[in-house]
Amino acid sequence: MTSSTLMVQKKVISLTKPIIEEAITNLYCNKFPTSLCIADLGCSSGPNTLFAVLEVVTTLDRVGKKMGRQLPEIQVFLNDLPGNDFNTIFKSLPRFQKDLEKRMGAGAESCFINGAPGSFYGRLFPSKSLHFIHSSYSLQWLSQIPQGLESNKGNIYMANSSPPCVLKAYYEQFQTDFSMFLRCRSEELLEGGSMVLTFLGRRSEDPSTKECCYIWELLAVALNDMVAEGLIEEEKMDSFNIPQYTPSPAEVKCEVEKEGSFTISRLEVSEVNWNAYHGEFCPSDAHKDGGYNVAKLMRAVAEPLLVSHFGDGMIEEVFSRYQKIVADRMSREKTEFINVTVSMTKRG
Amino acid sequence: MTSSTLMVQKKVISLTKPIIEEAITNLYCNKFPTSLCIADLGCSSGPNTLFAVLEVVTTLDRVGKKMGRQLPEIQVFLNDLPGNDFNTIFKSLPRFQKDLEKRMGAGAESCFINGAPGSFYGRLFPSKSLHFIHSSYSLQWLSQIPQGLESNKGNIYMANSSPPCVLKAYYEQFQTDFSMFLRCRSEELLEGGSMVLTFLGRRSEDPSTKECCYIWELLAVALNDMVAEGLIEEEKMDSFNIPQYTPSPAEVKCEVEKEGSFTISRLEVSEVNWNAYHGEFCPSDAHKDGGYNVAKLMRAVAEPLLVSHFGDGMIEEVFSRYQKIVADRMSREKTEFINVTVSMTKRG
Repeated sequence: MTSSTLMVQKKVISLTKPIIEEAITNLYCNKFPTSLCIADLGCSSGPNTLFAVLEVVTTLDRVGKKMGRQLPEIQVFLNDLPGNDFNTIFKSLPRFQKDLEKRMGAGAESCFINGAPGSFYGRLFPSKSLHFIHSSYSLQWLSQIPQGLESNKGNIYMANSSPPCVLKAYYEQFQTDFSMFLRCRSEELLEGGSMVLTFLGRRSEDPSTKECCYIWELLAVALNDMVAEGLIEEEKMDSFNIPQYTPSPAEVKCEVEKEGSFTISRLEVSEVNWNAYHGEFCPSDAHKDGGYNVAKLMRAVAEPLLVSHFGDGMIEEVFSRYQKIVADRMSREKTEFINVTVSMTKRG
Repeated sequence: MTSSTLMVQKKVISLTKPIIEEAITNLYCNKFPTSLCIADLGCSSGPNTLFAVLEVVTTLDRVGKKMGRQLPEIQVFLNDLPGNDFNTIFKSLPRFQKDLEKRMGAGAESCFINGAPGSFYGRLFPSKSLHFIHSSYSLQWLSQIPQGLESNKGNIYMANSSPPCVLKAYYEQFQTDFSMFLRCRSEELLEGGSMVLTFLGRRSEDPSTKECCYIWELLAVALNDMVAEGLIEEEKMDSFNIPQYTPSPAEVKCEVEKEGSFTISRLEVSEVNWNAYHGEFCPSDAHKDGGYNVAKLMRAVAEPLLVSHFGDGMIEEVFSRYQKIVADRMSREKTEFINVTVSMTKRG
């Protein structure tokens, strides 16, 4: 994971901190448990993974102390696909335990970390076994590329020029996946248990709005330029699509209500500048170059998808072009990622 | 993990199968749970890891069906040190799920596998969270090399020629470690929960008996030959010792009784030929060469220890010599590993 991705995720977690704190306060008020099970879904691998857990666990500790209670024993499940690099996470656990001790003092040794490999679009845990679920920047990933995108030529995601059937195919895949996610979590959470989920999303009800699609459209510009120059086959470009869906708050709400077992306590939108170092003290000049930072961040996300579709011969070229295109646009307009955060509680 | 190690472990698991079955039957009779938590401690990484879990889970299924009950949801924790290769285990999970389905049919999807990185000489799980603990061929490893082995010159483990203070140092380290293990597991197991542990051990009360020490003495022969030829520094050899203790059944029993929270239901000794292919159909000629098989098996175990102490320049040479020495002895005498298996239940 790059330092730019880390910066974005840290910003997202600090934005959602009050929501996590509120969810945990409600959880404790409901019934104070002697042992807590929490899960971070789509934890990825890198410094962020344990940063999110550190935030959640220290919040549990802080809120508990405010209420005059000692931190219960905590079992943490880090989830991602079986191909995720869990080894790197596990090797950094001794360091994590030290960080936790520094923040919490005694009690840190009662936090037990586990890996839970598998897709969150299926069951991962026994029934009624979890108290709290956190997921940040993972649920926008679909379980697969939607079917029926043949007419999305020249685009790699939903775009202004995508025909309605493409937008429909993307939306239906989101509905299928997110409703499956909700059904599974509803089985796994205890009554009164809660979830705080942050999606990369949008404010607008238009799924092809610039808010969420522009960053991919600019990558399509780089790819289309390479097609025009004969560096990429047109057919290859036409069949490439990103398995992501960036929902609006209303779309998230709609699926939660349809599923029926959760009460939404918060549904919020926030934004983070494409360049996560925007407005930050920059330790090096490189961070001042927004194009560089954003290209690096998007490369971390998109490289595996591009390589498996186009091969790895074109990677350097496409991201070098992308960096220039992004830098140009960033200098001329406001460029932000939109986050949709939903906090909900399992009904009794 | 080599195929020889796999063979030995498979034999050990099949030897302990009736003991596991008995422990599970008692567990079910005690109170039939709707959800089961089990742990495999020191799971290592390789085909064996999930083989042991497969055996335990299908036993849970078979015993449950005999009693007319459906398999409860099962949460499995695979434990080993944080440096263990969990990635390889996790990548083989889709295959494991298929094997489980073949053996069990429906219900296989209610088995959730997790990684639990950490030392089993410390707490790994919340209090009263586990129903069943399995560990095979791991508990003979000590948490550290015992202190005070300076006088064990020319040996790398307890040996016939080890002075009494060396035997005492090894035994005390075993007592410290195993009593800590029991205290931690006693906190983590539910009342009525049980453990089946298999150590590499010995029958005799003499800790330097050939039964458990000979295989290391032969490795010391190879190393001492290399010292004599100037290929290894004598000082290096004198400071190398294996952090293992192969207990007798009485020593295991003594620690369990001292700790006090478990009732032993079985304490048994079994043996496996050094050459795990002994008496088996051999798919290739290589397997007929016992020296080769045993050297390979011991290399899988000892190479990391040797490399971190002596560097990797000497590895090929030492195992080539060891293979010849082992082949010679195997042709002349009975060579077996002794296993001590203990089955115990957490008192109410």
